[in-house]
Amino acid sequence: MKIAILGFGTVGRGTYDILQARKEALEDLGGIQVAKVLVLPKEVDRCGLDKDLVTTDYQEILDNEEISCVVEVTGAKAQGFVFMKEALERKKHVVTANKAVVSLHLEELTSLAKKNGVHFLYEAAVGGGIPVISPLKAQAKLNKIDSIEGIFNGTCNYILSNMLAKGWSYQETLKKAQDLGFAEADPTDDVEGLDTMRKLVIVSSLALGFPVLEDQVALEGIAKIQVRDINYFKKKGLKVKLLASFKRQEEAYSLLVEPALMDLNHPLYGVDREINALGLHGDFVGQLTFIGPGAGKYPTGNAIVCDLMEIANSKERAFAFGQAQGTSQNNIRASYYVSLDQGYDLPEDWVLERLDLEEGQGILTKEVFRQDLVEKIGDLREAGAGVFFARIL
Amino acid sequence: MKIAILGFGTVGRGTYDILQARKEALEDLGGIQVAKVLVLPKEVDRCGLDKDLVTTDYQEILDNEEISCVVEVTGAKAQGFVFMKEALERKKHVVTANKAVVSLHLEELTSLAKKNGVHFLYEAAVGGGIPVISPLKAQAKLNKIDSIEGIFNGTCNYILSNMLAKGWSYQETLKKAQDLGFAEADPTDDVEGLDTMRKLVIVSSLALGFPVLEDQVALEGIAKIQVRDINYFKKKGLKVKLLASFKRQEEAYSLLVEPALMDLNHPLYGVDREINALGLHGDFVGQLTFIGPGAGKYPTGNAIVCDLMEIANSKERAFAFGQAQGTSQNNIRASYYVSLDQGYDLPEDWVLERLDLEEGQGILTKEVFRQDLVEKIGDLREAGAGVFFARIL
Repeated sequence: MKIAILGFGTVGRGTYDILQARKEALEDLGGIQVAKVLVLPKEVDRCGLDKDLVTTDYQEILDNEEISCVVEVTGAKAQGFVFMKEALERKKHVVTANKAVVSLHLEELTSLAKKNGVHFLYEAAVGGGIPVISPLKAQAKLNKIDSIEGIFNGTCNYILSNMLAKGWSYQETLKKAQDLGFAEADPTDDVEGLDTMRKLVIVSSLALGFPVLEDQVALEGIAKIQVRDINYFKKKGLKVKLLASFKRQEEAYSLLVEPALMDLNHPLYGVDREINALGLHGDFVGQLTFIGPGAGKYPTGNAIVCDLMEIANSKERAFAFGQAQGTSQNNIRASYYVSLDQGYDLPEDWVLERLDLEEGQGILTKEVFRQDLVEKIGDLREAGAGVFFARIL
Repeated sequence: MKIAILGFGTVGRGTYDILQARKEALEDLGGIQVAKVLVLPKEVDRCGLDKDLVTTDYQEILDNEEISCVVEVTGAKAQGFVFMKEALERKKHVVTANKAVVSLHLEELTSLAKKNGVHFLYEAAVGGGIPVISPLKAQAKLNKIDSIEGIFNGTCNYILSNMLAKGWSYQETLKKAQDLGFAEADPTDDVEGLDTMRKLVIVSSLALGFPVLEDQVALEGIAKIQVRDINYFKKKGLKVKLLASFKRQEEAYSLLVEPALMDLNHPLYGVDREINALGLHGDFVGQLTFIGPGAGKYPTGNAIVCDLMEIANSKERAFAFGQAQGTSQNNIRASYYVSLDQGYDLPEDWVLERLDLEEGQGILTKEVFRQDLVEKIGDLREAGAGVFFARIL
C-alpha cells in the first residue's frame, strides 16, 4: 500500500519513523510505503526528507492513482477537513489524528468513506497511543455501552496531578507545564475542556451508533481551581481529574466534561500526570479500562500505523452510523464539591456539609440538579466570586 | 459465516446468547449463525437447545462443508487439542478459550492454521473479556515489547484482595471464594499459579514472536501466604498480587509468576478482587494497561464473538511465529519480602532489614539472585518451615 503523509510535524515524523523502523514486519501485510509527504513551501528544505518524497501540492497526491491512502496530520481545522474530504472523494482511505475535525465532521466523513468504499480511521484522535477507538467500535457492536469515563487531556491531568503533588498554584503549574512542553502557549483548548469535549463527542457517537453534537456537551474546565481546593482534596485522600462522562439512562443520554473527585476505589484514581485513560461499561463485557500515553510523537505515530495496518488487513470498508435515538439530557443530579470566595454562598437547602477550607467557603452539596448548580454558580461568578466545583463520583 | 460451538458450558452458552442477542448488528459482517452445538450424550436433553442444532458426533461437524469455523469451549485438554487440530486440518477457522491447550500447542496450532489458510484465534484464553491478545499482536508488530505484567487469575486476586480487606486467613478466604463460585473445588491450577503461567506463556510468545515453553517460567503460587504477611502489607500500604512478568533484557528474557508487592504508584495497584489486567511496554507506544473482567459467561463469550468478528472481517489468515532468539533467563536479581516461622532464618548477609511481624521472622532482603533465594527457601520448607515470599516492585 502506498500512502501520503499530510503534514510533517511531530506526529507526521513519528509515523514516518515507525514505518521505516518496522518496514520488514509490515511486509506480510503487503508493505506500507510512504510515497509522498505534503509540507508547506518553507518546510521543503528544512524537513530533512529526500526532495523526491516531498511535495507542496496536494493535487499531485490526489492525482496519484498509486497512493491509496492519506494520513492527515496537519493539525489544521478547516484545511484538514478539506484534505480529508477530497481524499475520500477520490476513493483514498483516510487516517487522521485531527480530533477537532473528527468531532465536527464524524458523520459526514464516515458516510463519504462508506459511499466511496474506503476507510476513514482516527485511532490517534482519542487517547493518543492507547488503542481505544478500535476496541470501542468492536464492543459497541456487541454491547449496549452504558457509560464511558475518560481522562482525555494530558495537559489538564498533568496540571491537576502536579498541583496535588507539589502544592503549586494553578498559574505556577501551568507555567511549568508550558516550560516542559506539556502545555501549549495558548492553553485555552486544553484547560477549558474543549479538547476533552471533542474526544467525548467522538467516543459517545461510536457508543451510541449515531453522531452527537459538540453543543450537547455540558462543559466546565479546570482554570478556576485554587490551592484551597487542592489542599482539601489532599487532606481527604481524593484526586481531582477533568473527566469526560457519557452515560446512558433509559431513552436519554448525558455528556459531561467537568472536574470530578474520586477516591482510591475508582478505576481511574491512579491515572496521573500526562497519562490518559478510557473506561467503558458494556452490558455483556462489563467494565473495561484502557490506560496509556495520550500524546507524543511515537505513541501517536504508533496509533496511526495501527490504523494503516487495519486498512491493509481488512475487508470492511466503513463504520456506519444509524439514526439518532434518545435525547441528550445533561441535567443529571449529583453531589458536588463547591468552593467559593468569602462573602458568597449557595442556597442553604443545597448544603449537605460545610467544609473546613483554609480560606473561603467549602461546601459539599446534597444531590442537586447540575443545571441549577451551574446557573447559580454563573450568577456568583458574574458577581465577582471565585468559584470552583467538581462532581463527586 | 456458519459456525459450530464445541461444548455448551458457561462460555459456550455466553457465546450463543450474545450471537442471538446481537444477530442484527452482525449482519453487516455477513452474519454469524450457529449451525451446530457439540454436547455430550447426557447433555442432549438438558442443554435446552433445539434437537436439530445439537449433535454428539464431532465427525458430523467436520464433514459439514458449510461450517467454516469451530468455537472450542470444551475446557478439555487432550480432547480440546484433538478437536482444534482436526478442524484446522479440514480448513475450518478455530476460536478457543482453552488456555491450557493454547499454552502447550501455540506454535503447532498456529502453523497448522497458516498452512491451511485459516485463522486460529484465542482472545478469550487470556484476560477473559479484556481485549489483550489482539492489541498485543498489533503492538508486537510495531514495537519491541520490553515487558509485560499481568494479573491473569481472578481466583488468586480475589483471595489476596479479600485477605487484605477482611483480615481472613488463606484457608478461610479460599473456602469463601469456593462458596461464591470464585474458586474451583480443586483450586490447585489457580492458587499454585499454573493458570497464570499458561497465560504468561501465551502473551510472552506473542511479544517475542517465537514460542516460549511452560518450563521456562519460574513459578511460585499464593498458597503459602499467612495472616502475618497480610497484616504487614496492610500496615505499609502495600498490596500483594500474583504477578506474571515477562521482561526482555539485551539478548535474554525472563518469565516469572510469583507474588509481588506494589505500592500506590504501580499501575496495577487498583486491580482488586476478580479483576484481571495486562500492562505492556513497547519502545514506540510506551506503557499501555488494560483492565477488566478476567472470566465470566458474558465477558468471555464477548471475547469469543470479537474473534469471530475478526475472522468475518479479515484478510489475514494467520499469525506467524519466527525463530527463537535470545535465551530464557529467570535468574533475575531483586529485593524480596520473606516471612519465616520462628527458628528459621536467611543468611545474615542477605538481610537488608528485619521487619516487625506479629509472629515469625520478617525480612526485607538486599538484591539477591532469585535462584539462590528460591533454593534456600526450598531447603527451609523441606526442613518444615512455613515460608512466604514476594518480590518487591
